[in-house]
Amino acid sequence: MVSLNAIDRLQGLFSKLPGLGKKSAGRLVYHILDADPSYARALGEELLAFHRAIKRCSRCGSYTEQDPCPICADPAREPVICVVERAQDVRVIEESREFRGRFHVLGGVIAPLEGVNPENLRIEELLARVRREGISEVILAMNPTVEGDTTALYLRKVLRDTGVEITRLASGLPVGGDLEYADRLTLSRSFRGRVRL
Amino acid sequence: MVSLNAIDRLQGLFSKLPGLGKKSAGRLVYHILDADPSYARALGEELLAFHRAIKRCSRCGSYTEQDPCPICADPAREPVICVVERAQDVRVIEESREFRGRFHVLGGVIAPLEGVNPENLRIEELLARVRREGISEVILAMNPTVEGDTTALYLRKVLRDTGVEITRLASGLPVGGDLEYADRLTLSRSFRGRVRL
Repeated sequence: MVSLNAIDRLQGLFSKLPGLGKKSAGRLVYHILDADPSYARALGEELLAFHRAIKRCSRCGSYTEQDPCPICADPAREPVICVVERAQDVRVIEESREFRGRFHVLGGVIAPLEGVNPENLRIEELLARVRREGISEVILAMNPTVEGDTTALYLRKVLRDTGVEITRLASGLPVGGDLEYADRLTLSRSFRGRVRL
Repeated sequence: MVSLNAIDRLQGLFSKLPGLGKKSAGRLVYHILDADPSYARALGEELLAFHRAIKRCSRCGSYTEQDPCPICADPAREPVICVVERAQDVRVIEESREFRGRFHVLGGVIAPLEGVNPENLRIEELLARVRREGISEVILAMNPTVEGDTTALYLRKVLRDTGVEITRLASGLPVGGDLEYADRLTLSRSFRGRVRL
């Protein structure tokens, strides 16, 4: 099938997306071919406009259509900063409706083996915001991984001089989970973090 | 996050693709945001041009950039027609390099409960081609499912008058498979279709 270039090209582009191999990318391509052409047109137009429509908030670093983002621009947000690894974490936490403060996207976690050192993360910006915005508490919401914990310890150290309260999200058994299937580390954390009833 | 419309729209479009739920569509969107903008641009442009670039071959019904498709246009192809359910099956068989004849895409299989009857498939076109192109053999390569078998039996009936030889792809244990994990039907087919060594 020498000449099916458009199919090959589209399949190649799709297979660069996370979780999509060559086979599943091919399935998407044929699905799009079988679908109404308006679908490909809508998707194509969204993609062309995408990077123009979405930028990073100059304050918190999350993705937004306006700068500052609606969260940073909202004066009703409490003077508490939740520090997350990536921009998409902001959305997860917003959807939980558990938090009414502000966000700060670090842009990753400290991982020297992968070449990510503190100076590659938005830590200076965090310090500046804590001082400038009169922040009372910084909640460290990095993932409960080795790198996330390392980064949390590092941030605790650099934030100590600001006098701000520093907390870390609780780690333990997931709701609806089963003791039998919990890994040893999670179980150990859930014991150490146990709460009085 | 009221205002993240471009992200929501793109996520909504991606989640219409097969195998992609809301979560995985969101992961793709953020991957595209994190990636170089040239990626979104290339994908967007391919999608906009896609339905214009790819059409159906008026002879065999497979997807192609020229009409007739390179396979139908190739005079070296043997006068044997391999009948497949969908256009993407052509590609799978071409890649196996096992077959040097022509193809005919039925456009589905007979499934009255889903409203697919023989008149919805490209069966008349198949009959016309068998007569016009001097075909010596028709290989029925529908999937080994109830509907595929029903369609094969139906095609055998309507093709009988043409005098063409009619065959069906062998069905049995997949190469590299394990007897222990074969389902009962596949095992039964592999017995009925056993070959002398």
